Amino acid sequence: MLHFPYYLDLFGTLMFAMSGALAASDQKMHRDWFGISFTGFITAIGGGSLRDIMLDIHPLAWIRDAHYVIAIGAGVIVSVVFRNVLAKLRRTLFIFDTLGISVYTILGVQKSLLAGVNPLAAIMLGMFSAVFGGVIRDTLLNETPLIFRKEIYATACLAGASLYVLLDYFGVPPQVCSVCGMVLIAGVRIVAVRYKLSLPKLD
Amino acid sequence: MLHFPYYLDLFGTLMFAMSGALAASDQKMHRDWFGISFTGFITAIGGGSLRDIMLDIHPLAWIRDAHYVIAIGAGVIVSVVFRNVLAKLRRTLFIFDTLGISVYTILGVQKSLLAGVNPLAAIMLGMFSAVFGGVIRDTLLNETPLIFRKEIYATACLAGASLYVLLDYFGVPPQVCSVCGMVLIAGVRIVAVRYKLSLPKLD
Amino acid sequence: MLHFPYYLDLFGTLMFAMSGALAASDQKMHRDWFGISFTGFITAIGGGSLRDIMLDIHPLAWIRDAHYVIAIGAGVIVSVVFRNVLAKLRRTLFIFDTLGISVYTILGVQKSLLAGVNPLAAIMLGMFSAVFGGVIRDTLLNETPLIFRKEIYATACLAGASLYVLLDYFGVPPQVCSVCGMVLIAGVRIVAVRYKLSLPKLD
Repeated sequence: MLHFPYYLDLFGTLMFAMSGALAASDQKMHRDWFGISFTGFITAIGGGSLRDIMLDIHPLAWIRDAHYVIAIGAGVIVSVVFRNVLAKLRRTLFIFDTLGISVYTILGVQKSLLAGVNPLAAIMLGMFSAVFGGVIRDTLLNETPLIFRKEIYATACLAGASLYVLLDYFGVPPQVCSVCGMVLIAGVRIVAVRYKLSLPKLD
Repeated sequence: MLHFPYYLDLFGTLMFAMSGALAASDQKMHRDWFGISFTGFITAIGGGSLRDIMLDIHPLAWIRDAHYVIAIGAGVIVSVVFRNVLAKLRRTLFIFDTLGISVYTILGVQKSLLAGVNPLAAIMLGMFSAVFGGVIRDTLLNETPLIFRKEIYATACLAGASLYVLLDYFGVPPQVCSVCGMVLIAGVRIVAVRYKLSLPKLD
Repeated sequence: MLHFPYYLDLFGTLMFAMSGALAASDQKMHRDWFGISFTGFITAIGGGSLRDIMLDIHPLAWIRDAHYVIAIGAGVIVSVVFRNVLAKLRRTLFIFDTLGISVYTILGVQKSLLAGVNPLAAIMLGMFSAVFGGVIRDTLLNETPLIFRKEIYATACLAGASLYVLLDYFGVPPQVCSVCGMVLIAGVRIVAVRYKLSLPKLD
């Protein structure tokens, strides 16, 4: 059981590296291997590193454990080699990406609560863990960050993180909180994309 | 006396959250409630969190104390609900914003000197506390940061921070240093805006 | 021997401050003295501060030691006063810049290995130290970061950092590792610019 979150975390890191590498390889300007690797790396470590720096948890995962750097390298290589195949797998990738943000949000909330932070900050830190890598990726690529552009992406993370904190407050065991939180995040996002729901705009 | 800076700090946080939320709601693209809240949140915590991370002061204020997160939430809600009213109150908001940066600069200098940093770094950290939330806000919204665009904004912070450090060096009591520093910041900014002064450009 | 890296570090800081100040003074919008100083400052401290924050090494160099802030001030003033002369010295500046990134990369790798990080992370942190100031500079100026735009810049840093780690692994003394790493970085960059080599683009 102890090792399960570790492999989930490595898997999330690989998924984020792929999302960064694929975003960079979509842009003419960044399409050399350095631009792709760098963007993949920053996307993968951004959210988790920011969370741990804010929580003063050291050493950072990728600094402590070379497996994270290797996972990122693997994600970048897979993205570059199979990018034509991956372009046809958008639906599959969407599922993996949704899994990735669900896992990262919940791991972020757990880590924050363990560090003794207040529940509202734990919700924000969970959401940051999941979305901040993407925010840095888009800022580097000089695009409007995706979380501003599309759908219920980060709102789903906030909802799942809030559910976790609420259930935890009522003494529900962590495993149950985790599963409920992740199902809510994945559910909200899938339903929102399927039915093209978006947040109401101010007029 | 102990609690006074605490409430000032909460008040500054609320003001910064409003400035972020209003900036986001001015842009078509970010005008859903998530974009507005996220921008308000980052703007409010950006400067102080960066300062404390650089000074290695943990836990960060908003992680330790849920009141900061609540103040940010209040600032975002007020901005969204009253944004039509607020648009007519630009002059009042300008005063609050000026108060906000004055307070944040001086709190930042004090905190840095207490942490034992050198005086030049204390001046820079005071200025960062006040302006960096805004820099991140503008970078996220993909605009040229305000501190590059307009008036004597950050220069006023530098002047006030320098005055604080100078008076402190000559043994002036902290309360007097604080008041002098804040008056100088607010004064420089108000005079500069009133008489449309700007820094000389290189030709 | 102890002081040599210290002066190298100060020299690198001054060079980075000049590179930031000159980049800002090239843009109409940022050409007042605040924009130039701020950009110079952020460029100079960005890479090293990020590295030390990630490694949890405190206090940061420029917070501990006012000489760094003075070196940055000197770099900014030299850039502003002599910018017409400097515009004619592009070749000389290129040499200094190349020296700067070589030194910063190797110092970053050494500091990381000393802090006990894994070798892959040490390579990444060495590269970050050298290039991240520039990434922040370009993001602030709302330009596509240079490391995405041009030549073999960061790849040279990666190559030199990797060589250092490899030689170190085989027990080669640090001085020899350093010199080999720096020569490789400078060599790769100079050859690449001289012969207009660039990384292969994906098609």
